[in-house]
Amino acid sequence: MAANRAYLDHNASAPLVAEARAAMVAALDAANPSSVHSEGRTARRLIEDARRDVASLVNARPEHVVFTSSATEAASTLLSPDWQMGRGSVRMSHLYVCEADHPCVLGGGRFPAAQVTRIGVDRNGIADLEALTRALAAHDKANGLPLVAIHAANNETGVIQPIGRIAEVVKEAGGVLVVDAVQAAGRIPIDMSAGYADYLILSSHKIGGPKGVGAIVAAADLMMPKPLITGGGQEKGHRAGTENLAGIAGFGAAARAVLAGLDEIEAVARRRDEIEAIVREIAPDAEIFGAAAPRLANTTFFAIPGIKAETAQIAFDLAGVALSAGSACSSGKVGPSHVLKAMGRGDSLGALRVSIGRATRAEEIAAFRAALAGIAARRAGKEKAA
Amino acid sequence: MAANRAYLDHNASAPLVAEARAAMVAALDAANPSSVHSEGRTARRLIEDARRDVASLVNARPEHVVFTSSATEAASTLLSPDWQMGRGSVRMSHLYVCEADHPCVLGGGRFPAAQVTRIGVDRNGIADLEALTRALAAHDKANGLPLVAIHAANNETGVIQPIGRIAEVVKEAGGVLVVDAVQAAGRIPIDMSAGYADYLILSSHKIGGPKGVGAIVAAADLMMPKPLITGGGQEKGHRAGTENLAGIAGFGAAARAVLAGLDEIEAVARRRDEIEAIVREIAPDAEIFGAAAPRLANTTFFAIPGIKAETAQIAFDLAGVALSAGSACSSGKVGPSHVLKAMGRGDSLGALRVSIGRATRAEEIAAFRAALAGIAARRAGKEKAA
Repeated sequence: MAANRAYLDHNASAPLVAEARAAMVAALDAANPSSVHSEGRTARRLIEDARRDVASLVNARPEHVVFTSSATEAASTLLSPDWQMGRGSVRMSHLYVCEADHPCVLGGGRFPAAQVTRIGVDRNGIADLEALTRALAAHDKANGLPLVAIHAANNETGVIQPIGRIAEVVKEAGGVLVVDAVQAAGRIPIDMSAGYADYLILSSHKIGGPKGVGAIVAAADLMMPKPLITGGGQEKGHRAGTENLAGIAGFGAAARAVLAGLDEIEAVARRRDEIEAIVREIAPDAEIFGAAAPRLANTTFFAIPGIKAETAQIAFDLAGVALSAGSACSSGKVGPSHVLKAMGRGDSLGALRVSIGRATRAEEIAAFRAALAGIAARRAGKEKAA
Repeated sequence: MAANRAYLDHNASAPLVAEARAAMVAALDAANPSSVHSEGRTARRLIEDARRDVASLVNARPEHVVFTSSATEAASTLLSPDWQMGRGSVRMSHLYVCEADHPCVLGGGRFPAAQVTRIGVDRNGIADLEALTRALAAHDKANGLPLVAIHAANNETGVIQPIGRIAEVVKEAGGVLVVDAVQAAGRIPIDMSAGYADYLILSSHKIGGPKGVGAIVAAADLMMPKPLITGGGQEKGHRAGTENLAGIAGFGAAARAVLAGLDEIEAVARRRDEIEAIVREIAPDAEIFGAAAPRLANTTFFAIPGIKAETAQIAFDLAGVALSAGSACSSGKVGPSHVLKAMGRGDSLGALRVSIGRATRAEEIAAFRAALAGIAARRAGKEKAA
C-alpha cells in the first residue's frame, strides 16, 4: 500500500503481515511437496508447519486442516450433498444458509437451488434462531441429514452471530454445522475443541496472509465431503493439486501472528470507536448498522442520509482513502448489498464499510476524518442549493 | 535449491525463475482485485497483465484465459458433463481419456466412472488413434457430445502425442478436445489460434512459475464448463474466489520468460542427450522409454536391469541428486507407474526420470554421472557376489 494512502478495507483483504511475507519469500524456491527427495521433504515440512499454525489459531488438530485455494473453494467443497465416512457415504439432503451469508455460501455450493433454504436475519443482522429451529424440526431425515452453513461474523457489518446457540440448535436436530469464520478468525477467539462448529471455513488473506489460500478445519475426522477437486492424492485425498506452497507458508505465518495479536484487539476496538465518533460528529444523522449487536472490533458499516455509498466511496478514494461500499465481491454492483436487504434496510442509499487492523495508523484515521468532512460539506452545499 | 545439490526433477516442479520471483515479490502487497478503489484497480491490472502473458505463451486471446489454483483444478473443471453456452446448456455424455494421462485427467473429473473410456497407448506411449477413432464412431450423440482429454506430452516419458491428428479425429467426430499441456507448454510451441485444441490445461510451476496456479485456455468463447467453484463473480463467473494474486503475477512472468527461452530448447536437448549418453555408457543394458517417439527436449525416463527405481532414487538423493521414480504424485507408491503399465512395461522394476531445464548446470550433470556410476558399481558388486 502506498505510504500516503489510508487503507481502511481490511475485510476485503488485510495487508500482508511482515511474518507472512518473510515466510513466503523463504518458501519461493521450495520443490514439489509430493516429491520424495530431500527437496520434496523440505517442502512438505513447510506445509505441515503451516498446518499446525492454522490449527492453533482455532484450537483444532493439525490433521483436521485441509488447505484449499480460497474460502470460496472451501465452501464449494463443504456445501455438498455427498459426504463420505471412511468408505461409506453419507447424504445431506438439504442445506440451510443465512440470508446475510457471503455469496459463496448463499449460492449453496453443490446443492441444487431447490434444496437450499435461507434463514432470515433481524434488523441488527442476527440470524433468526427460531426460524432455523422450525426449519430443522421440519427437516425429513429419511433422505439425509440437514447441513447448516452460517458466517461467524458478517463481512459488511462485522455483526457476530450467536454460534454457540446455533450449534446447540443444529446438534439438537442431528445436523451438521459449517461455520464461515473468514472474518471472525483472528478477531475473536475460536475454539474448535469446545464444539464451536463441525467444520470451519478460513481465508488466509483476511488475517494478513496472502490471497489464494483458504482452509477447511474439521472438529473431528469422522466424515468429509466428497472431494471437489480430484486427481493426485494430496491433502489425504480431500483436495487434489500441487499445493500453493508459498501461499500456505504465508497463511501459517499469518495465523501465528494474528493469534499472538489477539490480545491487542481492544486497541483495534478503540480505534474503530474513534472512527464511529468521527462519523457521528461530522454526520449526526448517520446510521451505523448492527451497532446494537455484538460486532467485530475492526468493522463499521454506516449510511449517511443523502449520500450515495458508491459515489462517496469514489470520493474517499480520490481523497486517498480506500474503503468500500459493501463487500469487495459485490463492489461495482448498483444498489444496497444483499446484507442490508436481509436486514430490512434495502431502502438506504447503500453504506460505507471501514475495516481496520492492528496496523492501522493514526494518520489513516485523520485522512478518513478529512475526507468525510469534505464529502459532508459538499452534501451540505447541495442541500443549501436545493 | 541448495547450491551443492543437483536438481534434475523439473517435471515435478521447475525451479522458480528470477522473473517470476520478482513479479511475486512485487505483488505481495496488492489489494483485493475486486475492490473498486485505487489499490484494487492496481491489483486488477496485475492479473490482466499476467493473463496477457499466459495467453501469449500459447497464442491465445487473453479473454480466453481463466486462472485456476492448479492444473488439477482446471482438469476437474473441464472434465464435466455439464457445459454452458451463453444461457443455454450443453451436455457431454462421455469422456475419452488416454491410459497414460495424469491422474487428474485419468480420474475423469466430474464424470461418473461408467461414462469414462480409456484409450490405450503403444509401447512408445503414443495414443492409439485407431482405437480413439473407433470409440468416437461408436459414440451416441443422442445423449450428448463426446469429450476427449489427452496430454500433449507425458510427465514421465516426455513422449509427445500427435495432437494435430488427434484434433482432426475429434473434430471429425464432432467432439470437444481438452489438451493437458502442463508438461508441453514452454517446451514445444503451442498455437491455439491454429486449432491445436478446444481447451488447454496449463500449470504455472512446471514452467518456472510458482505452485498453486494453473489455467484453462479456451480457443474461443463459445462455451465453458459449469463452474466447479461458485461464489463471487471472479474470472467472469467461470471460477469464484479471490485470486491468488502473487501466484498469478508469477505465472505471467514465468510464461513470458519461458516463451522468450523457447529458442534455447535445442541446448536443453543436447544436455538431455548428454545425460542419456552417460546412462548408456555406464549401463549399456539400460532402456530409455519412448526413445523411438518424439519427446520433450528436457526429459528422459530409463530403467536399468537389476536396479529398483525407488531404491536408486534414494541413492541418488543421498548422493545429492534429486530426480524421481515416476511422477511426483505417484512417488512413494510401490511398483511401476501407470504410464509404464499402459506402455506394456509393467514388468520392469520401475524407471528413473531425469527432467531438466534451461538453467541446468554442467556440474549437475557431473553429479548425476558420479552418482549413477556408484549405483552401477554396487549393482556389479552384487552380481559378482551372487
